[in-house]
Amino acid sequence: MSGPKTLGILGGGQLAQMMAQAAKPLGVDCVVYDPSPDACAKSVAHLVNGSFDNARQLRSFAELVDVITYEFENVPNETVDTLDGLRPIHPQPEALKVSSNRVTEKAFFESCGVPVGPYRAISGPESLRIARDELGLPGVLKSNSGGYDGKGQYTLHTDDELENALAQIGNTPFIYESFVNFTRELSVIACRTIDGITVTYPLAQNTHQHGILVRSDAPATVQMNMTEQAHSAAKRVGDTLNYVGVFAIELFDVGGELLANEMAPRVHNTGHWTIEGSNTSQFENHVRAVMGLPLGSTEPEGHSVMLNIIGEMPNPDILKGISGATLHGYGKAPRPGRKIGHITVNGPDRETCLGTAKQIQSGLRNTMPGGGVRP
Amino acid sequence: MSGPKTLGILGGGQLAQMMAQAAKPLGVDCVVYDPSPDACAKSVAHLVNGSFDNARQLRSFAELVDVITYEFENVPNETVDTLDGLRPIHPQPEALKVSSNRVTEKAFFESCGVPVGPYRAISGPESLRIARDELGLPGVLKSNSGGYDGKGQYTLHTDDELENALAQIGNTPFIYESFVNFTRELSVIACRTIDGITVTYPLAQNTHQHGILVRSDAPATVQMNMTEQAHSAAKRVGDTLNYVGVFAIELFDVGGELLANEMAPRVHNTGHWTIEGSNTSQFENHVRAVMGLPLGSTEPEGHSVMLNIIGEMPNPDILKGISGATLHGYGKAPRPGRKIGHITVNGPDRETCLGTAKQIQSGLRNTMPGGGVRP
Repeated sequence: MSGPKTLGILGGGQLAQMMAQAAKPLGVDCVVYDPSPDACAKSVAHLVNGSFDNARQLRSFAELVDVITYEFENVPNETVDTLDGLRPIHPQPEALKVSSNRVTEKAFFESCGVPVGPYRAISGPESLRIARDELGLPGVLKSNSGGYDGKGQYTLHTDDELENALAQIGNTPFIYESFVNFTRELSVIACRTIDGITVTYPLAQNTHQHGILVRSDAPATVQMNMTEQAHSAAKRVGDTLNYVGVFAIELFDVGGELLANEMAPRVHNTGHWTIEGSNTSQFENHVRAVMGLPLGSTEPEGHSVMLNIIGEMPNPDILKGISGATLHGYGKAPRPGRKIGHITVNGPDRETCLGTAKQIQSGLRNTMPGGGVRP
Repeated sequence: MSGPKTLGILGGGQLAQMMAQAAKPLGVDCVVYDPSPDACAKSVAHLVNGSFDNARQLRSFAELVDVITYEFENVPNETVDTLDGLRPIHPQPEALKVSSNRVTEKAFFESCGVPVGPYRAISGPESLRIARDELGLPGVLKSNSGGYDGKGQYTLHTDDELENALAQIGNTPFIYESFVNFTRELSVIACRTIDGITVTYPLAQNTHQHGILVRSDAPATVQMNMTEQAHSAAKRVGDTLNYVGVFAIELFDVGGELLANEMAPRVHNTGHWTIEGSNTSQFENHVRAVMGLPLGSTEPEGHSVMLNIIGEMPNPDILKGISGATLHGYGKAPRPGRKIGHITVNGPDRETCLGTAKQIQSGLRNTMPGGGVRP
């Protein structure tokens, strides 16, 4: 095999770990860059340890590799600036910007002809009141960028909750989204080559609990036109961004119409099932795409159910006597709400897999972050 | 004044603290019982330090007091058994049982003719599927007793989330509640004497964020028949339980009809505004009721807005230059999601108070427990 041989990955978590594992059989070595000396990917890849603003370390990292990619989307601008021009970077850093701002992201979907749920950009009290009048309650107010912390996200059922949020947000940019009455959460994993070929995996059907993905199940049972909607959305998004590598689009199923919720410019948790459940995993295809290798088939093999292991590892005997299930431990320290492993169940059909998954789930000790939910 | 002079309070938190402060001018001394040597009520009352299963300590506590009451509802049965017959206990321990189980509580409201939102008792997978068919999605599945932890409460939008919950709950008792499309959250604080006289305070209008009360505002602007609905609900609940002391009923306003959500058999956070905002505070009236003294007037004085201080105390200068606002610090250690104080704003009308409250809110540094919310 000719061509580049070493892939540099910004970030050394479980996504980098699984990417490096997929790269090895292709003859591609990986080097990960992470601020933590304990980054879990170091078990399978060479680790360069440095902060994302350490230009000298970043340059040393670049010298070790032929191509650079990411395992996460919040790469600081200065990191990109330092690396720019030293080595090819895939996907191109511009592609990360779309998903770093919720309003930009929705507007981008719309500009590609991909339908989204009702939303308004919020710049302060007046625009929030107008949004409430136009879209109604209930809804969710989210800060445009960043996170799921107490200050950044408000579920609004009543005008009191709206006024309370107003007293806290000031004139910072937010997005207001109406509740979408969806019956399922789906996602599509896509991979696009340097030559502009886009392949997609069968849709995954996803289950969240307290805002954290707990289960993905694929291929989802869908009508043909839903597969087409998802593929066409991915194709348009990938082409518009001139994207290279794997990305995911989360979708709401509203009576058979798919609305895009958000995109992730990287390999995705709802694609972990592809390691055992598909001819070529999302990780292998990502490595293939960014290294300029031909993509592998995205055909599924039977049915897969992936269960996340959150907060705490289960008893190691959890899979004793259960066939067709694979445990992935990332080697990360336990902490409530943290994804530290996953289990994939494979079988001939959905019913069989869900039955096995249920048996396993009763033995999981997942611990979620604190904070209750209210109706 | 004749009659009993010393009140024993199980629990030594801020509710006991405010009760003891209200008792002093009535010539009533308070003794609090708490497992923590740092219980914050010890700043204003004698503290007996012991666990709730320490029969010897509990008997010593009983010897110091004439009447026993509680500041919290989850008093262990063995504690009640130890104290039973030693001193009068108000409210009678039976009254605590109603609210210790969500299904019992809803059924109790219904038996009193107090309307509630649609719910079903869930004993396992089959009953949950039937409840979903009858009441639809979305809804909330809550464990019958106990808490707001990751294992005890599930918001269900989709069948996937329902199946995921089923894999975790097993055959333990739960309640399934449909989403109620309310426009406001209200509450009524009631106080009932040994002679069966029930008084109520004007309704408070409450705002939650991430499941925690952040603001109460009273008297709420309501139609006359809503005040009557609330008073009549409180009267029937109090009479049926032969209740003595203060209790609260949380209500949803659904187009002018009030649905009972839950009751608290104690003084309540949504009644803190009565300290400055009413002729007689909920704490004073609770002490009066359990000590057999005549109740004071529940008439409001102008308008009040109470803001909870959660997690972290604000800068002490927060009220500088602001008139008509009172800071209550409980002397508790800071911790995300913990109520450690409150501020009450008083003024002639709602608009004035909310304006002042907003000014104060922008300076609060409330920290909520972790865990995001999703649409």
